[in-house]
Amino acid sequence: MSGHQPTPEGTPKVTEILADWVITTQTEDIPATVRAEGLRTFVNWVGCAVGGARHETTDAALRAVMPFSGPRSATVLGRPEKLDIFHAALVNGITSHVLDYDDTHLKTIIHPAGPVVSALLALAEIRPMSGEDFLTAMILGIEVECRIGNCVYPHHYDRGWHITGTAGVFGAAAAVGRAINLSPQQMRWAFGIAASQSSGFREMFGTMTKSFHPGSAAKNGLLAAIMAEAGFDSSERAIEAPRGWAKTTSDKQDWSEIVDGLGTSWEAALNSYKPFACGIVIHPTIDGCIQIRAEIGDKVNEIASVALTTHPLVLELTGKRDPKTGLEGKFSVFHSAACALLRGDGAPTAFTDEIVNSPDIVALRDTITATTDPTCHEASVDIVITFKDGSTLHKHVERAIGSSDVPLSDDQINGKFTVQSAMVIGQEATQKLLDIAWKTPLLSDVGDVARMSAHAAKDQAVAE
Amino acid sequence: MSGHQPTPEGTPKVTEILADWVITTQTEDIPATVRAEGLRTFVNWVGCAVGGARHETTDAALRAVMPFSGPRSATVLGRPEKLDIFHAALVNGITSHVLDYDDTHLKTIIHPAGPVVSALLALAEIRPMSGEDFLTAMILGIEVECRIGNCVYPHHYDRGWHITGTAGVFGAAAAVGRAINLSPQQMRWAFGIAASQSSGFREMFGTMTKSFHPGSAAKNGLLAAIMAEAGFDSSERAIEAPRGWAKTTSDKQDWSEIVDGLGTSWEAALNSYKPFACGIVIHPTIDGCIQIRAEIGDKVNEIASVALTTHPLVLELTGKRDPKTGLEGKFSVFHSAACALLRGDGAPTAFTDEIVNSPDIVALRDTITATTDPTCHEASVDIVITFKDGSTLHKHVERAIGSSDVPLSDDQINGKFTVQSAMVIGQEATQKLLDIAWKTPLLSDVGDVARMSAHAAKDQAVAE
Repeated sequence: MSGHQPTPEGTPKVTEILADWVITTQTEDIPATVRAEGLRTFVNWVGCAVGGARHETTDAALRAVMPFSGPRSATVLGRPEKLDIFHAALVNGITSHVLDYDDTHLKTIIHPAGPVVSALLALAEIRPMSGEDFLTAMILGIEVECRIGNCVYPHHYDRGWHITGTAGVFGAAAAVGRAINLSPQQMRWAFGIAASQSSGFREMFGTMTKSFHPGSAAKNGLLAAIMAEAGFDSSERAIEAPRGWAKTTSDKQDWSEIVDGLGTSWEAALNSYKPFACGIVIHPTIDGCIQIRAEIGDKVNEIASVALTTHPLVLELTGKRDPKTGLEGKFSVFHSAACALLRGDGAPTAFTDEIVNSPDIVALRDTITATTDPTCHEASVDIVITFKDGSTLHKHVERAIGSSDVPLSDDQINGKFTVQSAMVIGQEATQKLLDIAWKTPLLSDVGDVARMSAHAAKDQAVAE
Repeated sequence: MSGHQPTPEGTPKVTEILADWVITTQTEDIPATVRAEGLRTFVNWVGCAVGGARHETTDAALRAVMPFSGPRSATVLGRPEKLDIFHAALVNGITSHVLDYDDTHLKTIIHPAGPVVSALLALAEIRPMSGEDFLTAMILGIEVECRIGNCVYPHHYDRGWHITGTAGVFGAAAAVGRAINLSPQQMRWAFGIAASQSSGFREMFGTMTKSFHPGSAAKNGLLAAIMAEAGFDSSERAIEAPRGWAKTTSDKQDWSEIVDGLGTSWEAALNSYKPFACGIVIHPTIDGCIQIRAEIGDKVNEIASVALTTHPLVLELTGKRDPKTGLEGKFSVFHSAACALLRGDGAPTAFTDEIVNSPDIVALRDTITATTDPTCHEASVDIVITFKDGSTLHKHVERAIGSSDVPLSDDQINGKFTVQSAMVIGQEATQKLLDIAWKTPLLSDVGDVARMSAHAAKDQAVAE
């Protein structure tokens, strides 16, 4: 980057570089393909936020913060309640992640939209902006978030950080800072205030606090930008300083991941959308099992045993043998495979307490074994079915659906949107919401998307 | 601790141990000497919170959050404004730290009261509690905070974390969790939600974001306890898990620092109070220079040069040769020494823009040299003055005032309280506030202390 001299130690001034870039990039500097992917990211996020709106995790969060809300100007998507922008950002960040059905930047396992969109859309309800400006700020925020993630991945993640929370807060600050037109110095301050709120641990997986991470990142990134705007100052080199964020939280820093190709090569264009409502490491297995079910039909009832060969991360993250709850089911490759074979389902409906305890699924689950193979790609799986008659069937999934090689089509995004949103606001309202979400680039006020989801929730509440 | 089996790997379940202890400890289990130190901690904090109430950092924070406040039930000490409890905790945490005049747990350099008291006192304004119950919860919170700090210090601090923020959030959660009577499981959840908000970097020293750290820890610890109370769950082993807080943020974990002597040996009793309004590493130098001034009187005007021998951390943290602002002056052992010699001052009045640029102080400052000696204790300094006539004077400070060997008397605490509080709410209101603060153990509603500081602020506002 011209005009940005590195420090005497040779470290690029990445905080300054990102701040300048976020402020100065024009909408027309973003290629049409990247903008198109940004729209898919937003549409997918809206469906997830509505889908998680009535989850018990959301109820608990709302019980906690509702009494302390400031001016109720921002929508909790899919619900009649409104909250101040900080608490709305928190709750929407929780809802959009809680079904594990959101989006993934596969290089870092960051779920990019949760922190960024939850913050930016809440802001848009008090500082109205067009859909086009919204998408620009969102794409820039996601780009910042993923590049900062790339800089420290995998060491940062391996250390124990839940990177969606820790990198997400920078993305939220960037998107909001762009939208409220911070000066470059204020944007550097915002990154500093964001850094000092960066947190979230993988230890929380399997608890409500996992979903708290994108919500907290959204709330805190929003606060960082609002405080910087008010003149609250901070370090102007928070990311790269010797005792700054990257060196303190990671044993690897690759600054080139932040600066190389900035504005020409787009991480935001690599976003992917979960076809199944669980951690992505199980997706190849579910994909393969659903394919097998389609091929063999009723013969799924004659399976004697199933042998999986997977990447080692699959058992590390999702090796639960005896899940008892829907949530635990998401962390069980065994349940997920059995449910995919017997029900053909990997949507949120596959991870309810009832389904996880269904006798036929439990019985099949107990016949499933898994072997790990470090040479197995994370997006691959090998499945061998043995039938009661002794015959076998072999299925190899080279790249699972939803991976970068097999992206979800717009229709498939619509499908997952509809499944989860309809559970909350009904079929008719879901269709209207889906229609307006795709029209975001044409909207003069993007807050209409948030408010329409709430109107639908109200209508449904009356109908109940 | 009986009844708490370690994990299979032999790690004590410190999250569970601390949670049980915080919930079950009775007021009468806390020795009178510890309670007395707790009262000194609270009184000192009140003076600092009022003292920082009109700092530009406070103004900036208030400008940012005021429009988003929920029910304005909690006092910003020393000001007429009220905020919802979360934002009040944030702002009071900022004000009480911004003058660098607060308290220090010397083993970890944690400033214990900021996170804990800011959270607990805000809560007390919506859930009234007696002064006695308040002090119990505060002491337990500080004990948790300092023990968690001890567990990871110094590696955690050396890595770059500002430990007042990172350990403080646990203390705030503990104090509030105790006050709202969480169940042991809810208290474990609160520690988990607190962990996932733990942050703050030393890189921010010298900026407003340093003071943001205790404020953010207060706000976030309060949120953690409130969410746990509402049923928002989390890991129940957030501190000690293989990918939990201690292992992710530090390369050292000494669990015995958390569990050994819990309830019999008190870190909360080791709290100290800053005699000077700057980082504690400069305190021996200021102490020595004020002693020299008292001994030589007008001869301070005949000093030709000053040679300091200090612990290496002094120059690392406060080695600024040419400070231009009051804030930069706090990070200059050279300014601090010159000002102590020429003005006898180390209070907030020694760190204004005007004083830092006074020609006589700048001239003397430029004659001062510093040599570091790793064998020099952090609380010691060696000072050699050379006068214009060639004569010399040698002063060795073995342990500075404010260190554990030379604690501030109650009168000295009153002195620093009065100096800073009077700048904000005037002498008369300061005296009333000081009186009620010392009477905290007798109060039926500790919120009266907060509210009295605000009444004084209003009175003064009218008088202005």
